[in-house]
Amino acid sequence: LQVAIQNVTGYAGLTTALLLQQHPEFHLVAVSGRSEAGKTVREVFPYWPGWEDLRIETEVPAVDLVFSALPHGAAAAAIEPLYRAGSKVVDISADFRLRDAEVYEHWYGRHPFPELLEEAVYGLPEWHRAALSQARLVGNPGCYPTASILTLGPALAAGIIEHEVIIDAKSGVSGAGRGLSLGTHFSEVNEAVAPYAVSGHRHTPEIEQELSLIAGKPVVALFMPHLVPMSRGMEVSCYARLRQPTTTPEVLDLYRRQYADEPFVRVVDGPPSSKWSSGANTCYIHAAVNRQGTHLMAFGVIDNLVKGAAGQAIQNANILCGLSESMGLMMPPIFP
Amino acid sequence: LQVAIQNVTGYAGLTTALLLQQHPEFHLVAVSGRSEAGKTVREVFPYWPGWEDLRIETEVPAVDLVFSALPHGAAAAAIEPLYRAGSKVVDISADFRLRDAEVYEHWYGRHPFPELLEEAVYGLPEWHRAALSQARLVGNPGCYPTASILTLGPALAAGIIEHEVIIDAKSGVSGAGRGLSLGTHFSEVNEAVAPYAVSGHRHTPEIEQELSLIAGKPVVALFMPHLVPMSRGMEVSCYARLRQPTTTPEVLDLYRRQYADEPFVRVVDGPPSSKWSSGANTCYIHAAVNRQGTHLMAFGVIDNLVKGAAGQAIQNANILCGLSESMGLMMPPIFP
Amino acid sequence: LQVAIQNVTGYAGLTTALLLQQHPEFHLVAVSGRSEAGKTVREVFPYWPGWEDLRIETEVPAVDLVFSALPHGAAAAAIEPLYRAGSKVVDISADFRLRDAEVYEHWYGRHPFPELLEEAVYGLPEWHRAALSQARLVGNPGCYPTASILTLGPALAAGIIEHEVIIDAKSGVSGAGRGLSLGTHFSEVNEAVAPYAVSGHRHTPEIEQELSLIAGKPVVALFMPHLVPMSRGMEVSCYARLRQPTTTPEVLDLYRRQYADEPFVRVVDGPPSSKWSSGANTCYIHAAVNRQGTHLMAFGVIDNLVKGAAGQAIQNANILCGLSESMGLMMPPIFP
Amino acid sequence: LQVAIQNVTGYAGLTTALLLQQHPEFHLVAVSGRSEAGKTVREVFPYWPGWEDLRIETEVPAVDLVFSALPHGAAAAAIEPLYRAGSKVVDISADFRLRDAEVYEHWYGRHPFPELLEEAVYGLPEWHRAALSQARLVGNPGCYPTASILTLGPALAAGIIEHEVIIDAKSGVSGAGRGLSLGTHFSEVNEAVAPYAVSGHRHTPEIEQELSLIAGKPVVALFMPHLVPMSRGMEVSCYARLRQPTTTPEVLDLYRRQYADEPFVRVVDGPPSSKWSSGANTCYIHAAVNRQGTHLMAFGVIDNLVKGAAGQAIQNANILCGLSESMGLMMPPIFP
Repeated sequence: LQVAIQNVTGYAGLTTALLLQQHPEFHLVAVSGRSEAGKTVREVFPYWPGWEDLRIETEVPAVDLVFSALPHGAAAAAIEPLYRAGSKVVDISADFRLRDAEVYEHWYGRHPFPELLEEAVYGLPEWHRAALSQARLVGNPGCYPTASILTLGPALAAGIIEHEVIIDAKSGVSGAGRGLSLGTHFSEVNEAVAPYAVSGHRHTPEIEQELSLIAGKPVVALFMPHLVPMSRGMEVSCYARLRQPTTTPEVLDLYRRQYADEPFVRVVDGPPSSKWSSGANTCYIHAAVNRQGTHLMAFGVIDNLVKGAAGQAIQNANILCGLSESMGLMMPPIFP
Repeated sequence: LQVAIQNVTGYAGLTTALLLQQHPEFHLVAVSGRSEAGKTVREVFPYWPGWEDLRIETEVPAVDLVFSALPHGAAAAAIEPLYRAGSKVVDISADFRLRDAEVYEHWYGRHPFPELLEEAVYGLPEWHRAALSQARLVGNPGCYPTASILTLGPALAAGIIEHEVIIDAKSGVSGAGRGLSLGTHFSEVNEAVAPYAVSGHRHTPEIEQELSLIAGKPVVALFMPHLVPMSRGMEVSCYARLRQPTTTPEVLDLYRRQYADEPFVRVVDGPPSSKWSSGANTCYIHAAVNRQGTHLMAFGVIDNLVKGAAGQAIQNANILCGLSESMGLMMPPIFP
Repeated sequence: LQVAIQNVTGYAGLTTALLLQQHPEFHLVAVSGRSEAGKTVREVFPYWPGWEDLRIETEVPAVDLVFSALPHGAAAAAIEPLYRAGSKVVDISADFRLRDAEVYEHWYGRHPFPELLEEAVYGLPEWHRAALSQARLVGNPGCYPTASILTLGPALAAGIIEHEVIIDAKSGVSGAGRGLSLGTHFSEVNEAVAPYAVSGHRHTPEIEQELSLIAGKPVVALFMPHLVPMSRGMEVSCYARLRQPTTTPEVLDLYRRQYADEPFVRVVDGPPSSKWSSGANTCYIHAAVNRQGTHLMAFGVIDNLVKGAAGQAIQNANILCGLSESMGLMMPPIFP
Repeated sequence: LQVAIQNVTGYAGLTTALLLQQHPEFHLVAVSGRSEAGKTVREVFPYWPGWEDLRIETEVPAVDLVFSALPHGAAAAAIEPLYRAGSKVVDISADFRLRDAEVYEHWYGRHPFPELLEEAVYGLPEWHRAALSQARLVGNPGCYPTASILTLGPALAAGIIEHEVIIDAKSGVSGAGRGLSLGTHFSEVNEAVAPYAVSGHRHTPEIEQELSLIAGKPVVALFMPHLVPMSRGMEVSCYARLRQPTTTPEVLDLYRRQYADEPFVRVVDGPPSSKWSSGANTCYIHAAVNRQGTHLMAFGVIDNLVKGAAGQAIQNANILCGLSESMGLMMPPIFP
């Protein structure tokens, strides 16, 4: 299958390209970029693997499958003609994640093609696999939502927690993208941990939308992201009041049953480290009840650029194309 | 004044020694260590500043002031004779922090000198200054409790939040000490963030004891520590349900009034970075109300080895000795 | 083919196991460990990929192919019976790298099976491919020698530099292994760069042996390693006096011709970053002439655990088994 | 004494301001910045210590003492009127380091006030103390030259090495300044070590100028800088052919005699770590002879922002003002 990537020069697009090197069915034939158009990928990324070089264009053609990694707004505009022309599209931006155009507008501004929202499927295979297998347009989840929904989903589906959850999330710096700012300057963020977006982060409505669907009624999330001095990786610690007495073993059993057949989610007996997921498409989850028996504490880790972006995008693309869901995604973690 | 340090070879003892180099009144005359006894400090620490070397002994004499940085249990046993002999003592271990010998026993094992517990004062000057000025034995707070109590204290004192709080804490690796383990091995913890002590951390009872005192009735804390890949620094993000409607400006005003005259606490308008405190004795705090107006979110950062250990120990010692509280502690942060 | 790993619990053995997950022909059927024998791999490494677990044994059977990642001395003793029983063996330790038993003894102690030394081939495919294709026992190069020999080889083969070279090497901390010491303690080595082994590093004779073979006469290496605060990766900066006037373009052309057909060496136009190699089996090399035209400066980067250990071991095993040399090794770099 | 800082918003200016907080005689009364003019220092640096805020102006007045931390070219232009008006000036930029206006022009462009070059003294107190005590304008050395000259000076002064030296230097990222670029982007340089400026770094002529003065005849330096993933700190490894047989103990003795009375240089028995100098004004040096007895290997570490910039600037200012050279500079290292 012929594949293209829009905006290969950001970290999500770049990681998609790197991971595709090992995919047996997806052949990358075109990439676009913005500031770097005209150069070849190897001029921009000297570590580009393989022996084929590609020129970065301003646009990509309507090939079989398109991964879009443009900023929100720009993504929908660039995707629409390709989608109309018949391409399957996995959008790694935020443009096709929210089902409600008004919610989108509140957080991101007016949506250029709101009529497409109902054709898009939210690309979290563990909770939307059936719909994805019929889809042609996927809104690939954000990194924080991927970790948060996978980590809280089983407890909400089983109805064991209240519908108000606190999510304290920690992300590596690559989550802030390849753009330049003091907030990504090595000397400023190294040896530092800090909360940010205290007044509200754009991933909140996405988390609430999906958790509400799982719970069957509205879920409110207090979502607080933090920046941690590492390149990749993400951990979410989730807290919610229990609706009934339960125990850590019972909760772990519940989680294990939920994800028993999942190739990319593993429930573990103790707290996971974000490093276990580094470079891999695996989400590790642990859950426990606090000493007083009042709260669920659930912990999830992913690589923000793999299961949190490019890896999940390929997982979704595999489903869209009728391939094995884990094709090209069995890379081991980079540990240590 | 003549000063000694017990167990100078751990990070808390070492940092105390390093900070004392700039103190005009405290003259370090004796240090003890355990595995390294017999060597000089400079053989163990080639970066020992100043031009005087000291031999590491197995015990220190009863000089005017003793900083103890031994592990719990060992600390109380080593402190007792010095205290009886008239030394002022600041214990950086956990042995004199908890007022209740049974609570101590539950978390640490039987206390060797429970009768001393009532003579000790909890060494958080911002909340116990008067008692400290009359004390001769101080239980220097743990790093997590220092950050947590300073960050939640004003809200509990003012009665604006419920008495059940969630504290999600992130610490640099030096908090785990100088001992060797896979959990402090560079390759294992670099590029990694992970929760730990899910079933309960020993700093929890200390946090609950002090927050309950401030609130005037029992406070329950869900305290969850995480390890972050940096040498020093700590951040706590605290969440609690509001008891009444309020706003971020009102909360900030409340915090500013509480700490208006404090030399080592500064309330800031946005979320702080742990790096602002690096090497300094300052705690930075921010607080805000979430979008829904249901919860207080309060954030505090300290250097875990300075305000969270050695710096606060010197601050307490200054009070004990009737000196200016900030003497020798005005070092700037190391930024970047 | 059935494959076993000796000492899977060190970083070299672990990385070999992780990389083998993607190899289509090598099936890992047995692993041994030392302190962890009796546990399963997943009990020790929760991030072990795939869905099969394996028990860690004290010894492995004589299967088709054995990777040995034991410490020197122990490796030769454990390899000998398997080799005698017919297994092909790639030894990642130092036991079969040096051709001269006396040199070995000087640096490592008496060799237990010196008679095997002449049956072993030094496993740097770029310079010993023909011999490797006939071998059954391979001494897999050290990480520093791999980078150093690849980086200096073309200049020595072409005779353009003097036979006295200076190699200033920088390694990530995983090169020091999974063992515990203050030298791998996060808080001690983070935010630190330091030279070590000033009086002589064991990789020096290995570098000299191979560079001398390439040059056709004795080469003396001043080899100085440094520890850098990162988990993986290595860079060598090599300096040698030119024997004749030349230019940077001429030198780059010489290097490009040497490595034109190599799947895992790439000559680049500017100085490479160790990060380009992270997780991949690729060595990037740049070479230049200094302003005065007196010296060659050549720079090489590898991932110390991939091309510097496990990846190269699999590359060698592919050659030994008559497979495509790059089979299972086309993983992209982890960037960023 | 009243003190001002030009360009407080770069890391050298900022660090000077932070260090001045502990200086008993220098009172910071004015600061200038460029992009941030009009704001207060605390608006730009929330971690600004002390209780006085200062407004960032576009220019500073001709107070007793001025530290200039402007980029080269801009520095000389801004310094000239203040110097003419009678201020003592320590220039942390490159504008007054090179004695030869033509050499300056080759590396930096035309010098705006070449006539001032002969009035300036190179501010390395360990080698120019007498001249500094008579000076009113100081060219504060670059970070790399400070480490390199201190590390090689004794061997060249004693005539034990050839006049061609190789300096392989490793710097933390703060050396690249507070400006934004991919080369200081956390995700790009974390977990990475890389050489840069292969075709020539601007600190080379400064190193050669000073080493030649010490040696009494021209010294040629092959200077190769590398970027290492840490915020602060610097290490130089220097290699030079010995002119006569000697031993490591003899060399160490030579170095110890050279620096016996220096408050900020310490010669140590083994290789130093850059972390020993973190936050302190101390340079640690080790020197050894290689196994073959052919080369001197000398190693030096400093904090690039303290002894390599702001600390040394204050040391020079102390000398200019007739104060104790170490006044305000006895801060201990930040370790770990």
